[in-house]
Amino acid sequence: MIINPALAQPTPDPLPSWSEGPVKQTIINFVNQVSDPHNATYVPPSNRIATFDNDGTLWVEKPIYIQVVFLLQRLKKLASSNPELANYPHIQEALAGNYDSLSKQDIINLIMTTHAGVTQEEFNKLAKEFYNTAIHPHFQKLYKKLTYQPMIELLEYLRSKEFITYICTGGGMDFVRMIAEENYGIPPEQVIGTNILKEIQRKDNKNVLIRIPELVPPINDKAGKPIHIDRHIGKKPILAVGNSDGDIEMLEYTHTLEDKNTLALLLNHDDEQREYKYNLGTEKALIEAKKQGWIIVSMKKDFQQIFIK
Amino acid sequence: MIINPALAQPTPDPLPSWSEGPVKQTIINFVNQVSDPHNATYVPPSNRIATFDNDGTLWVEKPIYIQVVFLLQRLKKLASSNPELANYPHIQEALAGNYDSLSKQDIINLIMTTHAGVTQEEFNKLAKEFYNTAIHPHFQKLYKKLTYQPMIELLEYLRSKEFITYICTGGGMDFVRMIAEENYGIPPEQVIGTNILKEIQRKDNKNVLIRIPELVPPINDKAGKPIHIDRHIGKKPILAVGNSDGDIEMLEYTHTLEDKNTLALLLNHDDEQREYKYNLGTEKALIEAKKQGWIIVSMKKDFQQIFIK
Repeated sequence: MIINPALAQPTPDPLPSWSEGPVKQTIINFVNQVSDPHNATYVPPSNRIATFDNDGTLWVEKPIYIQVVFLLQRLKKLASSNPELANYPHIQEALAGNYDSLSKQDIINLIMTTHAGVTQEEFNKLAKEFYNTAIHPHFQKLYKKLTYQPMIELLEYLRSKEFITYICTGGGMDFVRMIAEENYGIPPEQVIGTNILKEIQRKDNKNVLIRIPELVPPINDKAGKPIHIDRHIGKKPILAVGNSDGDIEMLEYTHTLEDKNTLALLLNHDDEQREYKYNLGTEKALIEAKKQGWIIVSMKKDFQQIFIK
Repeated sequence: MIINPALAQPTPDPLPSWSEGPVKQTIINFVNQVSDPHNATYVPPSNRIATFDNDGTLWVEKPIYIQVVFLLQRLKKLASSNPELANYPHIQEALAGNYDSLSKQDIINLIMTTHAGVTQEEFNKLAKEFYNTAIHPHFQKLYKKLTYQPMIELLEYLRSKEFITYICTGGGMDFVRMIAEENYGIPPEQVIGTNILKEIQRKDNKNVLIRIPELVPPINDKAGKPIHIDRHIGKKPILAVGNSDGDIEMLEYTHTLEDKNTLALLLNHDDEQREYKYNLGTEKALIEAKKQGWIIVSMKKDFQQIFIK
């Protein structure tokens, strides 16, 4: 057989913003291995489930989760007519830009305070407006521009290989649904998150969904993540990507040392110059990664470019 | 232009078990209308959401919901070592085949009594075994053979037109997930139902999901259906199919007289000879159907064949 070199097209690099090296190669090998029907490790497309944490994994999460900025903006507006709202513990500090004392429980309380009692449609409108206009205090760019280019490439690469890509976020599911299609190409039904309870009420002669200030258990963080993944999908992921201690149980649900045919990635924020360097809230995950065989992705070494253009 | 009649292939009937008539024609017209990109009523595939009730809509629900038979079978087994289990109100009667006094709340309590405390994997195995062997007392056939052929055709027709078909059942989501792929070609992630809470526990040196006897609110019946549809999909259906008062809110969420581009179907069990004739628990739905413009499907007139072969 004579091969015409002019016809031998090089395969385009599916992950051009990832540096060449063992991490990138591990990802590509894994994807090839599960999508090759001639391989014993083949996984049919319907089971190619990939779950991604959102804040700190797909976009920036410092100095505070973007949804908290949205909540505080709303709180300020509401506080002009309800001054007592600003009296919640830590709220004054948070409004002044000091987020350190704000616990995850405080954030849940904030969601209840600021985004209950409205219809789902009203909430969606507020979330969209915020997403389209809010600026990051340090980078002075729209938050939506602080999405990680290598992760967008990974999502697209996986979908090109018939993976189904889900977000599994500790944040409010409805907020993330409003940004996920434009930001990540992920439709609402593939966003799993913390749920507020809703009820049907009659309004303007129509049945509408009203957000009521009660959480549907559990919070979609830590052990809540596998529970919500099971509730939403009913299948185990074969790939999970996270960045913090809140992702440990999701990563472990996907991959431990015993699992041969799954992959877990942990993004390490170690790039002080181009983004942030921190390990507060990620210490345990970094230790577990070594025990469980999760791949640590270094932002500094593995990301040639950080943000989308 | 000369048309060669030998080349003019007739379009195969997508719904051969449906009788010719206004109901079948309404369904076909609707599907054509939303899937024709040249039509102002076009709906892109990602929004072609169809939700189907399960019991009494996709398969037989008399003399009692199939899942209840599963629960009672399990209860009998458990009662041999825990005789007090059989002392729940109405249980003795139900075990003797008298289901009339069994309320939906009783059924929920039964789920908690019989299928909590086990791992999700154990539950799945029990459900599969039941599904593969259980026989209907009247028809003396496997329950799985008591699936409605016209509904299977409708599901397949919709998927061939790029609809995404969901089940939205008042029954336990996990039970229906175990039967939906084989029975209806619907994968687990497209089954919405009543949810039991789960938690992660350590067992045999592995993290496993354990079913705990607590309901995730609300029950997926009546007003719970639109709430769970929103929680699971985040989009409104453009087609909904039900058969009882428990489906009213789902049908109304999908189609009222004001909506031009959506369709709601209500299956009426009016065929005493081939299946059952009843309107207990469907009276309100039949009245609402006329007010809201839902299409009433008569089993007797519109179904040429009832069960799959």
